[in-house]
Amino acid sequence: MPSYTAPTKDMQFLLHDVFKITEADIPGYEELERDFTGAILEEAGKISSEVLQPLNAVGDTEGCTLENGVVRTPTGFKAAFEQVKEGGWTGLDMPEAYGGQNMPYVLGTAVGEMFSASNQAFTMYQGLTHGAASAILAHGSEAQKDTYLPKMVACDWTGTMNLTEPHCGTDLGLMRTRAEPQEDGSYKITGQKIFISAGEHDMADNIIHLVLAKITGGPEGIKGVSLFIVPKFLVNEDGSLGARNGVACGNIEEKMGIHGNSTCVMNYDGATGYLLGQEHKGMRAMFTMMNEARLGVGMQGLAQAEAAYQNAVVYAKDRLQGRAVTGVENPDGPADPLIVHPDIRRSLMDQKSFTEAARAFILWGATMIDRAHRADDKDADGLISLLTPVIKGFLTDKGYDMTVQAQQVYGGHGYIEEWGMSQFTRDARIAMIYEGANGVQALDLVGRKLAQDGGKHVMAFFDMVKSYIKENAGQNEALDRDFLEPLKAASKDLQAAGMYFMQNGMKNPNNALAGSNDFMHMFGHVCLGLMWARMAKTSADALAAGTDDAAFHETKLATGRYYMARQLPATAMHLARIQTGADTVMALDAASF
Amino acid sequence: MPSYTAPTKDMQFLLHDVFKITEADIPGYEELERDFTGAILEEAGKISSEVLQPLNAVGDTEGCTLENGVVRTPTGFKAAFEQVKEGGWTGLDMPEAYGGQNMPYVLGTAVGEMFSASNQAFTMYQGLTHGAASAILAHGSEAQKDTYLPKMVACDWTGTMNLTEPHCGTDLGLMRTRAEPQEDGSYKITGQKIFISAGEHDMADNIIHLVLAKITGGPEGIKGVSLFIVPKFLVNEDGSLGARNGVACGNIEEKMGIHGNSTCVMNYDGATGYLLGQEHKGMRAMFTMMNEARLGVGMQGLAQAEAAYQNAVVYAKDRLQGRAVTGVENPDGPADPLIVHPDIRRSLMDQKSFTEAARAFILWGATMIDRAHRADDKDADGLISLLTPVIKGFLTDKGYDMTVQAQQVYGGHGYIEEWGMSQFTRDARIAMIYEGANGVQALDLVGRKLAQDGGKHVMAFFDMVKSYIKENAGQNEALDRDFLEPLKAASKDLQAAGMYFMQNGMKNPNNALAGSNDFMHMFGHVCLGLMWARMAKTSADALAAGTDDAAFHETKLATGRYYMARQLPATAMHLARIQTGADTVMALDAASF
Repeated sequence: MPSYTAPTKDMQFLLHDVFKITEADIPGYEELERDFTGAILEEAGKISSEVLQPLNAVGDTEGCTLENGVVRTPTGFKAAFEQVKEGGWTGLDMPEAYGGQNMPYVLGTAVGEMFSASNQAFTMYQGLTHGAASAILAHGSEAQKDTYLPKMVACDWTGTMNLTEPHCGTDLGLMRTRAEPQEDGSYKITGQKIFISAGEHDMADNIIHLVLAKITGGPEGIKGVSLFIVPKFLVNEDGSLGARNGVACGNIEEKMGIHGNSTCVMNYDGATGYLLGQEHKGMRAMFTMMNEARLGVGMQGLAQAEAAYQNAVVYAKDRLQGRAVTGVENPDGPADPLIVHPDIRRSLMDQKSFTEAARAFILWGATMIDRAHRADDKDADGLISLLTPVIKGFLTDKGYDMTVQAQQVYGGHGYIEEWGMSQFTRDARIAMIYEGANGVQALDLVGRKLAQDGGKHVMAFFDMVKSYIKENAGQNEALDRDFLEPLKAASKDLQAAGMYFMQNGMKNPNNALAGSNDFMHMFGHVCLGLMWARMAKTSADALAAGTDDAAFHETKLATGRYYMARQLPATAMHLARIQTGADTVMALDAASF
Repeated sequence: MPSYTAPTKDMQFLLHDVFKITEADIPGYEELERDFTGAILEEAGKISSEVLQPLNAVGDTEGCTLENGVVRTPTGFKAAFEQVKEGGWTGLDMPEAYGGQNMPYVLGTAVGEMFSASNQAFTMYQGLTHGAASAILAHGSEAQKDTYLPKMVACDWTGTMNLTEPHCGTDLGLMRTRAEPQEDGSYKITGQKIFISAGEHDMADNIIHLVLAKITGGPEGIKGVSLFIVPKFLVNEDGSLGARNGVACGNIEEKMGIHGNSTCVMNYDGATGYLLGQEHKGMRAMFTMMNEARLGVGMQGLAQAEAAYQNAVVYAKDRLQGRAVTGVENPDGPADPLIVHPDIRRSLMDQKSFTEAARAFILWGATMIDRAHRADDKDADGLISLLTPVIKGFLTDKGYDMTVQAQQVYGGHGYIEEWGMSQFTRDARIAMIYEGANGVQALDLVGRKLAQDGGKHVMAFFDMVKSYIKENAGQNEALDRDFLEPLKAASKDLQAAGMYFMQNGMKNPNNALAGSNDFMHMFGHVCLGLMWARMAKTSADALAAGTDDAAFHETKLATGRYYMARQLPATAMHLARIQTGADTVMALDAASF
């Protein structure tokens, strides 16, 4: 069975050596001393390896079952959930006023990677609750916050997000779920929602559904959508649970993976709901959750890749097959370990150089969210808004590719379920789909985010990369050659693609949209290239200063050189594709497919 | 549920318009008139759509079960197998002397694509039998052929290939299964083999296992491996079934996909076996099957991509989400179909332009096998030997990517099992692994095939591409620009990569092997580019000649232009990676991963 070791050291390196978080001018960051974050990450790593990871295969094998409207989670999930709750992990970055610990989002993200890597299906119960609580925090009345947040922060009550209906996924304007206003100010919600993760289960006393619906008589389409709180059990004035509400799980889906999480069809039959935020502004309220949720999904892409990579390394070192072409390396054994073979190395280096940079990218993104929220920094908000589709789309596409590569290291043993590598691949697949399929992320990036605020944020990004290169060039020949020059070339490719869109997207927007997937990928590469440049600089400085952990920093530099040499050149291919425009993409009639 | 329509028209175009098979100087090809192949393909398409495809989901859901040593195949498999047998499909390209129809391999390959696309797990029972029968045909004594082939050609008895053991997959020199010579000339086979597809099941009267084992006292390592025929039931002199042999299925594996095929642990406990071919030459005999088997697996990569693509198209046309950015296209509906969106187009064009060229590549490869076998053409044999790892590795890597893209078109509906898209992805995954994992294919290509016969075959390949471009250039400006020039550029990239290997592989073979995966992929792109150039020329000529099927040929040209513009430029990226050599790939100690 697979194992998982939390990458605590790598996270500490990023938080303290690369991003120097305690020096950042963000309220709350001054408390994040190295020892403090180290202790928290150590503890989170322990629970991940010892409690969550051993349940990962159990969840996959048993799945969830629905009987008489009751969903049973896999053996051991409930006890583990209690343990996570007791450890205070569910409220790590939630306000103290509601029982949380008020830690910055960046720390919650680091812990989230560990939890997701060790058991994605399990961690989603908590993750969805976090998202729903964040929406109530941002848009709820004081009474709503007081009623729901303490319970949700503790995960005594869990939360869900209800968007999709059978006939509408991305296009929520087509929504049919209705909200009928009642005399007491509440609404009667009627309709069917599908793909509701954690929609029904046996680990919480109550489930707080956030449901998008159209108020009768409101505007047509997306402009008439409002957001409602629909608790499974109505809540009495004193906070105790009242009557069962008119919402029920009609079915749970058989899925490719994340079997441990119940994906429910939820039927609302005149269920009592309470407006969250303003009438007809449901999409805005939902999007509060969405940016965080999308960063969280990007993090899942990284997390599965990391877990799969760790196990691929174990196997590559253990499994004896063939001999190194450059001479026997394990003379006492019947064969050399897989890891001597160059193509196995290539695969492991692909994985390692991706996960380490992806982790940097995610944590960097999380600091921007903190800066936006805690320091009310509009530029940080704009930048993370621009980068969100890149984090979600690129990291889940690549993260999936990496789990497939890790699985491949196992040969036939990767295909059978016994070794657990298939589960990583099957679980990772969902991240490319939910919270907006990756094609929608690419569309969001190219169709909306590039031009947002007059293109201000993408210009700021390019300026930042340019400044970084300028400030750091000429100090270290090896860094210039191996990191800054490739980054400059990749960034130029990205700018050329943006320029192509500007020049050709006006006459035909398809010229931009046909390149949206390529643009998202090249943007991702540039971001990871930037992360590698920053990590390399940090490690080169540490080595120059005579660090006593030279092996760590040498490895970091070698891994970064691999990425810059072998992965970053993909930007040229993406640019070449983009510059062919929409002609070949849109040439055929629909009937010709 | 998914559906499948056999691409008969496309196959006919390839066989007759592009490859002009009846004019090829290959014995047996003169019979392959258009009407004749059309009738066969039509019939095969019918059985695929109506009999095999409806059982595909059944096989996935039910899987195989093992009880008291008996493996039960999914509901309906046995009846369908009888139908396939009665139709004579199992012996299509087998010799008439053994009950076959003596059709060329190319026709068997076209039919094989249909069967695999409609039900891969089911078709493997027949496919393994074909492989085992081919080995007996090539290496068996007359008596062995007479005993086994008539039954195997009819699939009354099925066959298996037994290579892998728990501790050795690719490195068969580590094999532990023993063959003890007996006085009557037979052997007692003892050992355990794993991952044996169709190792035990309820659809045949007997199962003929081909088993690699080491004869006691023979040479060490791979040089001491021999191949044995080990029937499940011993066969009496009169051909009737005798005693149960000492071979049993100990377990069947839980797998990511191909659930309808039983993947068995086979225990040989002093089982009676008969030497097939020469003592200690087992690998050579096994490799007879292997080239065909690898082409067959490449074909599976195409087949799953084709089936998945067809269903992605159906969904993209049906599902209404959002509006075209260039103006409403379905004004009477609540939204436009997915297919109006450029990124959905991009995905469908990726898939379509891949599958059509992959089909051409496979059929072209099959003509080489026919030419080698039927016309005893050593050059054809050398060329297909060079291209086999490309067909297997590139087409299954890309085929898998394409099933993932097709699944992605379905959004959340692609992740749940109900729609069948997950099965395409899960089934397609195995093709990257079995018959030699794709890393082994890349190693075979770069480490063995490039230098085979003094590099003669790769030089012949480059000459062929060059000649093709030279002969066809300057006749049609659009063809030159859209097809020949990109092909020339890609071919130059491939040659530059080969040159890099020659110049740098000498001092350190890792400089070549670190680029083996990239080389395999760029070789695949050049082959598909060549296929598109040939198809485009055919279609351009047809249009110039005033064909009455202009729509088909226009679509062909547009699809090809997409591939040349959007996919072929990948060769530059692969070259750039290759030219960075082994340094970054091999930089780390094993302990640093």
